[in-house]
Amino acid sequence: MTLNREDPLPLYQQMYDLLRADLEKGVYSPGEQIPTELELARRHGVSRITVKQAIQKLVLEGRLYRIQGKGTFVARPRLSRKLKTITSFTEELKQRNLRPGIKLLLFEVQTAVPKVARALGIGDHDAVAVLRRLRLGDDEPMGLQTAYLPFSLVHPLLREEDKLATGSLYSVLEGMGLRPVRAVEEYSAVLLDTPTAHLLGVRPGSPAFAVERVSYLPDDRPIEFVESFLRADRYTLQVELEGV
Amino acid sequence: MTLNREDPLPLYQQMYDLLRADLEKGVYSPGEQIPTELELARRHGVSRITVKQAIQKLVLEGRLYRIQGKGTFVARPRLSRKLKTITSFTEELKQRNLRPGIKLLLFEVQTAVPKVARALGIGDHDAVAVLRRLRLGDDEPMGLQTAYLPFSLVHPLLREEDKLATGSLYSVLEGMGLRPVRAVEEYSAVLLDTPTAHLLGVRPGSPAFAVERVSYLPDDRPIEFVESFLRADRYTLQVELEGV
Repeated sequence: MTLNREDPLPLYQQMYDLLRADLEKGVYSPGEQIPTELELARRHGVSRITVKQAIQKLVLEGRLYRIQGKGTFVARPRLSRKLKTITSFTEELKQRNLRPGIKLLLFEVQTAVPKVARALGIGDHDAVAVLRRLRLGDDEPMGLQTAYLPFSLVHPLLREEDKLATGSLYSVLEGMGLRPVRAVEEYSAVLLDTPTAHLLGVRPGSPAFAVERVSYLPDDRPIEFVESFLRADRYTLQVELEGV
Repeated sequence: MTLNREDPLPLYQQMYDLLRADLEKGVYSPGEQIPTELELARRHGVSRITVKQAIQKLVLEGRLYRIQGKGTFVARPRLSRKLKTITSFTEELKQRNLRPGIKLLLFEVQTAVPKVARALGIGDHDAVAVLRRLRLGDDEPMGLQTAYLPFSLVHPLLREEDKLATGSLYSVLEGMGLRPVRAVEEYSAVLLDTPTAHLLGVRPGSPAFAVERVSYLPDDRPIEFVESFLRADRYTLQVELEGV
């Protein structure tokens, strides 16, 4: 594949297509440094600006990343989250052959703020168990989750802090006969604020998915409201759509 | 709801909850200016820094926006795209009571780049019809779509430029007996590059959903590969998950 000045497609777009195809073919491996802008410009007979634009697009998409003073490197492939069945974070990481890890940041009883109360269908100021955990895959932060559960339903949970510090909330809920069977999720694309970015090990202002999930028991009572942030450089969302 | 210094929740987070609850209750309307940081700080007896942090979080989430030298304003509610059935952009906007509009940017036959060829299951350099359209809702840019269709299947499409400049591609395909019945979509959270941001009427570096869709005919032949960018301040994605 060579760049073609006769092609109506702008040269930087052609350069982008070429680099992206190389990445998809595995010409460069995750973590590997790609050639410098100057070298790529020489090799393909285009200006350094053209190469810079193509690389910039791949950086914005999270396929490449830059280290100041060192160069441009290949990002690891992102997890494709299949939006179909209700899966715990732990199960999801295992399916992707990543070793799940947890850093427990907060586990306590609070009074519900209005937004949480509305999501859970409980009264303002009713008690909720709040569980904030950093989720790791192969020791790297993947997402930050804050789960709110109606305290009236889950008070035995307070005795399970050890399990929650290491494993799946859903497994613990299952043991209590409270495993959710259905959930509604809403995804936004956001820029991370400084504290969240620091927890996730990325730069403030990096893109992320913000997710709100409400999960339901078989009798349709909400059992949890979860706010999550997923690193955009580690996640994509995949969904199958059917005919109407 | 008042701020509580005894609460373990940081004050800026309490301020955020309060402002967000006000936005959800409609205390401020879309397009309306909210009180200044100084005024909010006075009213709630907190520092201006605390208010600034809370507002910053709401700006990053796309719920508020700033105009330099004028103040902070309430963003319009975002479209919630229900990820379930395969819907045309035109239908989707109509369902949301937005007047669909189109700006046709490109409609021509090209040779497929490797990525497009792979998605459509055709040969490298096979011909594809390329349709790039800016999609508007009530005259405002909502998304940018570039659709690639195998030219061997859709050559009568070339006579339909007038319809494509004003309406649904799927309606035209339906008329040709080629309406897709199934699609797979993959969403990423990205930062917009300068040309795409300008087309969408937002600042370069604004967050967006990048979407890749492959749509299939009843006999499982791919009929289109679509790359889209959806403004994060105008879209959220909603999905229902079921038990395993």
